[in-house]
Amino acid sequence: MTYNPEKPYKDQILGLIKKTWKTRYVSVYEGTYAVFKRKFAYHEVDHTDGIGTKGVYHWEARTLKNAVLDALAMNLNDLAMARATPYKLQCHLILPKDDGKAILDIMKNLVAECKKRDIAITGGETSIQNNIRGLDISLTVSGFVKEKRKNQFRAGDVLVGLASSGLHSNGFTTVRKIFGTKRYQEFMESTKIYSDVISRLDEKYDIHGMMHITGGAYTKLKGIMRNVDVIILNSHELKPQPIFKKIYSKGVSDIDMYKIFNCGIGFVMSVPGNQAIEITSKVKDAYIIGEVASGTNKVRINSMFSDRRIIF
Amino acid sequence: MTYNPEKPYKDQILGLIKKTWKTRYVSVYEGTYAVFKRKFAYHEVDHTDGIGTKGVYHWEARTLKNAVLDALAMNLNDLAMARATPYKLQCHLILPKDDGKAILDIMKNLVAECKKRDIAITGGETSIQNNIRGLDISLTVSGFVKEKRKNQFRAGDVLVGLASSGLHSNGFTTVRKIFGTKRYQEFMESTKIYSDVISRLDEKYDIHGMMHITGGAYTKLKGIMRNVDVIILNSHELKPQPIFKKIYSKGVSDIDMYKIFNCGIGFVMSVPGNQAIEITSKVKDAYIIGEVASGTNKVRINSMFSDRRIIF
Repeated sequence: MTYNPEKPYKDQILGLIKKTWKTRYVSVYEGTYAVFKRKFAYHEVDHTDGIGTKGVYHWEARTLKNAVLDALAMNLNDLAMARATPYKLQCHLILPKDDGKAILDIMKNLVAECKKRDIAITGGETSIQNNIRGLDISLTVSGFVKEKRKNQFRAGDVLVGLASSGLHSNGFTTVRKIFGTKRYQEFMESTKIYSDVISRLDEKYDIHGMMHITGGAYTKLKGIMRNVDVIILNSHELKPQPIFKKIYSKGVSDIDMYKIFNCGIGFVMSVPGNQAIEITSKVKDAYIIGEVASGTNKVRINSMFSDRRIIF
Repeated sequence: MTYNPEKPYKDQILGLIKKTWKTRYVSVYEGTYAVFKRKFAYHEVDHTDGIGTKGVYHWEARTLKNAVLDALAMNLNDLAMARATPYKLQCHLILPKDDGKAILDIMKNLVAECKKRDIAITGGETSIQNNIRGLDISLTVSGFVKEKRKNQFRAGDVLVGLASSGLHSNGFTTVRKIFGTKRYQEFMESTKIYSDVISRLDEKYDIHGMMHITGGAYTKLKGIMRNVDVIILNSHELKPQPIFKKIYSKGVSDIDMYKIFNCGIGFVMSVPGNQAIEITSKVKDAYIIGEVASGTNKVRINSMFSDRRIIF
């Protein structure tokens, strides 16, 4: 991030970014580049993700704050699975045109969210690409890990699901195939950030396995299974957003619904049964959605859209 | 970077990436995410950049190796200015379609370049966006800094320029405006990686100021000036690539040529005169291109395209 004197709003943005440079975790030496020093010596994890084609809707609807929340959620929720505490990030904005007001708006929101969580913004890049239709916010977030632990579903555990806020940031290629240029309010709803609640729960409960339901949806569960099956029942308490039924009604199959969309659950964790009951009674939007059994690494779902049973 | 069992080529890619996990600088603990431990405790700099709209040409011409070199050059050359030694990176690929062969090809080349330089690939993301025309490779590279030093042009110094390999990775929005859908071989030429030679020179010579000429071209020099003027003469030894004259002949003004394009020089450094002579005699493609004088932070250029003198 070098200073380009041709862009007057860069001064303002640099001023904003500097507000994130004093955290519990890093100190920053100011130079042409932000040279930072960590205040700890833990292991580290880096994570990169952006908002993908959802950026088309955010750009058209100017829902820039939600775009920021999406980009953060995609990274922080994944880092939560690695039990990493995020402490710094780099931001790569890709915009269809050089819109200083939009860039400033995005950075203001990003700075506010980072300040809340003690995350330093150590640099980034803004790229104007007139051949794209939407924006993308690609973040690389670094987290430190105090304690390395396995992340694996355990037979006998109960599955707790945290409700999603809707589509989150995946499946938008399919959404655009189905709805074309139509734009429903639901498309711009931001992804829930689960990392704050997960880090609190992780201190108190035995979360054996956890998974952020994003690209690939429920197929992602297979990444942390070893000789178990995951069984997901159609919970009657959970009320998924109507958008999922709307998409299903356009002809997407039951299995594809669960392979592409979160279908109302954005984060899944496996914990002992008694803890599952405690968690769901204390945490808003937490539901018991199934169980883990000995098996052959299959995901078995009772479809909420029909009476079909899905296996993959 | 979680494992998605629906994408068989991910196994191969993960195998490739793991080849970068044993370096002089980090060790990696293998989990769902690469948790790494640094082997040193220096200050750090992070840097993010991608290849921008040049990715349209690389995608159409399938010059994927050059795309990788571009993305690396944009980051490594900037980190060289901060005197940072790169040691790890995250990679965000954005592609118009899910093309396993292309992804594998990109990752093979990235792994090879990283292995050469002891850079660990600690993770990343591949995003398929069917609303874009080209590819983008956005990298976030972290470097450590042994010695914090100023980066500033000094009055009395001589300017040494390192020849570019052509357009590098900037000005492509203008290029596409001028040439439309035409695609010349020069558009896919990769950006030179200067960091290897710069780190060698930096050990031996007093490089007071240095700048990678990228987006904003010669306006970037203003970022490291304090009460000086930078004077760039039309060097007769330097032979810029014909593409710059071709672009000029399409009606771009002298001043815009130097505000948008590198015009044959990709990296500029200011050093004492005797060192400038030594450097240019020893380093291939290094030329004396001007000087630094006391002044008011102006860039003064004798245009190579006409007899005009440009000031900004």
